[in-house]
Amino acid sequence: MAIIVQKFGGTSVADLDRIRSVAWRVKAEIDKNNQVAVVVSAMAGTTNQLVEWARDIGPLHDAREYDTIVASGEQITVGLLAIALQNIGIDARSWLGWQLPFRTNDVHSSARIEDIDVSMLKSRLAENQVAVVAGFQGITDTNRITTLGRGGSDTSAVALAAALDAERCDIYTDVDGVYTTDPRVVPKARKLDTITFEEMLEMASAGAKVLETRSVAMAMSHHVKLQVRSSFVEEDGTLVIEEDDDMEKQKISGIAYSRDEAKVTLVGLPDRPGIAATVFGALADSHINVDMIVQSASPDDSRTDITFSVAALDADKAVQVLEQQKSDLAFDRVIADTNIAKISVIGTAMRSQPGIARTMFSVLAEKGINLHVISTSEIKISTLIDADYTELAVRSLHDAYGLETS
Amino acid sequence: MAIIVQKFGGTSVADLDRIRSVAWRVKAEIDKNNQVAVVVSAMAGTTNQLVEWARDIGPLHDAREYDTIVASGEQITVGLLAIALQNIGIDARSWLGWQLPFRTNDVHSSARIEDIDVSMLKSRLAENQVAVVAGFQGITDTNRITTLGRGGSDTSAVALAAALDAERCDIYTDVDGVYTTDPRVVPKARKLDTITFEEMLEMASAGAKVLETRSVAMAMSHHVKLQVRSSFVEEDGTLVIEEDDDMEKQKISGIAYSRDEAKVTLVGLPDRPGIAATVFGALADSHINVDMIVQSASPDDSRTDITFSVAALDADKAVQVLEQQKSDLAFDRVIADTNIAKISVIGTAMRSQPGIARTMFSVLAEKGINLHVISTSEIKISTLIDADYTELAVRSLHDAYGLETS
Repeated sequence: MAIIVQKFGGTSVADLDRIRSVAWRVKAEIDKNNQVAVVVSAMAGTTNQLVEWARDIGPLHDAREYDTIVASGEQITVGLLAIALQNIGIDARSWLGWQLPFRTNDVHSSARIEDIDVSMLKSRLAENQVAVVAGFQGITDTNRITTLGRGGSDTSAVALAAALDAERCDIYTDVDGVYTTDPRVVPKARKLDTITFEEMLEMASAGAKVLETRSVAMAMSHHVKLQVRSSFVEEDGTLVIEEDDDMEKQKISGIAYSRDEAKVTLVGLPDRPGIAATVFGALADSHINVDMIVQSASPDDSRTDITFSVAALDADKAVQVLEQQKSDLAFDRVIADTNIAKISVIGTAMRSQPGIARTMFSVLAEKGINLHVISTSEIKISTLIDADYTELAVRSLHDAYGLETS
Repeated sequence: MAIIVQKFGGTSVADLDRIRSVAWRVKAEIDKNNQVAVVVSAMAGTTNQLVEWARDIGPLHDAREYDTIVASGEQITVGLLAIALQNIGIDARSWLGWQLPFRTNDVHSSARIEDIDVSMLKSRLAENQVAVVAGFQGITDTNRITTLGRGGSDTSAVALAAALDAERCDIYTDVDGVYTTDPRVVPKARKLDTITFEEMLEMASAGAKVLETRSVAMAMSHHVKLQVRSSFVEEDGTLVIEEDDDMEKQKISGIAYSRDEAKVTLVGLPDRPGIAATVFGALADSHINVDMIVQSASPDDSRTDITFSVAALDADKAVQVLEQQKSDLAFDRVIADTNIAKISVIGTAMRSQPGIARTMFSVLAEKGINLHVISTSEIKISTLIDADYTELAVRSLHDAYGLETS
C-alpha cells in the first residue's frame, strides 16, 4: 500500500461544510487502498485574527509567544477534520506539531524543520488510521512551539511526505493546477499536466502564486512527487516531477509576471573597482533582497549607472540606504520606479533551443515595449518593463510560444 | 519570597484591554515582592464557539478530538497575556498543559489532575519570571490533550497552588467576593471577609455560583488558602480558610438558593424492604444525581410515598426511568414539579447553636411558606419550597439571622 500525503489550505477548511468536503477527498484516497496523512492549515481568517491580536496586544513582540498564539488555529482544524472523518466511517486522529514531534530550529515565526519523528504515525497508518496533522507548526529542543512562516503548511506537507517516503504529496488549493500563465490575463492559458521542479521553482520566484518556492525546493531535494490540484473540482491537477532526460521539450512551460517589483537606478557613479560591492553590501546589511542587476558604462568610462530591482515594498528603504552612503558613493542621483513589472519566460526547453530568448525580445520589440533590465538563468529569461504593458506582453508571448496547445 | 497563584476567568480576559488590565493585576503582586503564576481561561465566547464547532461537525463525538479543539482557546490567552506582561516590563512566559506537563487521567472532557511537574516552572519563578499557565487543560500518559470540564480553570489554579506550595490562590472573577446571600435578591447582603472551606463547599453545592465545588474541595484537601476577588475592583475579596478552633462563630455565614431543582414524588409505593434501593439504584444507573430524599409512611403501613429532588434538567428523565420500573415498583403514580426552589442556611455556627434550625422553620412558617422536603448536614439546613417564595424566603432569613451586620 502506498502512502499519500494530502494538504488542504485555509480556504479549503474555511467552514464546517468545507471541512466535511475535505473528509470526502480523504476518503477518495482511502477507497483507492492508500494510507493517508492529511496536513491542514487554519480556517481562513483565523490566522489573520490571531496575528492581529498578537500584534495589537503591545509593541514589544516575543516571537515565541506569537507562535504559541498563532499555532492554535491549526489545532482547531485538525480536531474538526478528525471528527468529520470519523463521522463518515473513517478511523482518524489528530497530531499536533509537539505530538509527533515535528522538530525545528528555534528561529520562531520562520523556523526550519530539522527532523520529524514519524514512527508512531507510521504504525497508525499501517492500521488504516488516517493521520490528521497540523501544518505550519513544530517545536524546538526546549519544547516551545514554532511556526514555519509563509507557505508553512505546504512545507509541513512536503517534509512529512519525505519522512514517510510517500508516493505523492497532493497540494489542494483554490486553483486546479499550474497554468501556462495566469488565466485571468490570458483566458486561453492551458493547465499543465506536468512541470519540472526547476521550472516550478522559477515560476514561483517569478511571481506565480500557486506554490511557495520553499516547499518546491524541499520537494526537489527530497524527491517528493508533488501534485497541485483543486479542493473543489475532482480532477487531476499538475504533477511537479523530476526532469526526464529522454524528454526534450520543444516548448517553454509558462510565462510568469509580477507587479510587486521596483526598479532603482543610481546615476553617475564613479566607475572604480569595488563600487558595486559597496552598493550591494549596504543594501544587504539592511536586509534588502536585490533581484536583477545591470551596470552600464558611460561613454567616457569615468562614470557608470547601476540599475537593479527590489521588492516594491523595499523601494523607499533602498533609496534611503543609498542616500545615507552618498558621500562615500558620490553618485549624481538615485531614482526609484515602482510602476514596473517583471515578465519571465520559463522552461527547460531553453537548454536545447537557443531561439527562445530571441523570440521573446522580438515579440516585445514588435509591440513597442521597452526592456529596462534583462536577466537570465539556465531555464528562465526575465525582463523589467513598464507595468502598463504587463497584460499585452504576457498575451503576446503566450501566443508567440504557442502555449494554448500542448 | 512567597508564591502567589492568580486565576482569571473568561470575562477577565475577554478582549485585549482586559488582558492588559490583568497584566497590571499581576504586576501589583510582583511589586509586593511575590513570585507569581497566573492561570487563565479562554477569552469569553471562544470556548462556546469551539464547543459549537466540535458538536456541529458531526453527530459522532470523539472526546479526545473535542478536547484538542477546545483547549486551543487557552493557548491564545496565555500567549497574549505573556506579551502584555512583557510590554509593561515584566519577564513572563506561557506554559501549556503539555509543556509542564499537567498530567491527568484519560477521562476526556472531565479529566482529573494526577500530577503536575513544576520543577522547570519553579526555577523560572525563582528567576522572577512570571508563569502564565493555560487553565482547563492537561495531557494523558499517551500525550493526548485533556480538558477538566466545568470550572476546570479554577481547579487548575488550585492544583498548581498546591504543587507550588503557594502562599495563596486568588480567584479573580466578576464579583468581588462571597456574600451572605445573592445581592441581587437582598441588596443589604454583606461581603464576607472570611468563610471556611466547609461553608464554601456547602454554599457552592447549594447554588452559590462563585466557585465550583470541585476546586474548593481540592483546596480544602491540599490546604490551599483561597481568595475570591474582583478582576475589576482593587480591594480585598473573601478569604476561604480552614476553620479556626478558637473561634466559635455566633452567626451563620450565608443563605444560598437554587431554582434549578425539581421535586419528584412517587405515590403509593408498597412499603417493603429494599424498595428505596430499587428506586435510587435505577436512577443512579441512569446517571441521575439525587440530592434530598424524604420517605413518609402511610397510616396503615402498607404503602409509602418517596419524595426526592434532582436537577431540573434531569426531571423528565427521572420520571421516564421510574415509569419503566413501574411493573416492578408497583407505585400508584409519579409526579415531577420543577416550580421549586432550594433554600439553604449555611454556617459552622450550627455546630454550637441548636437554635438556628428552629429560627429558620419559624421564620418561614410566619411567612406562610410551606416546606416540602428538609435535609440537614452538620453545617447546613436545606429545604424545598415553592419557587414563587424564593426572594421572600431569602430576604426574611437574611433579616432574621442579622446578616447585614458582621
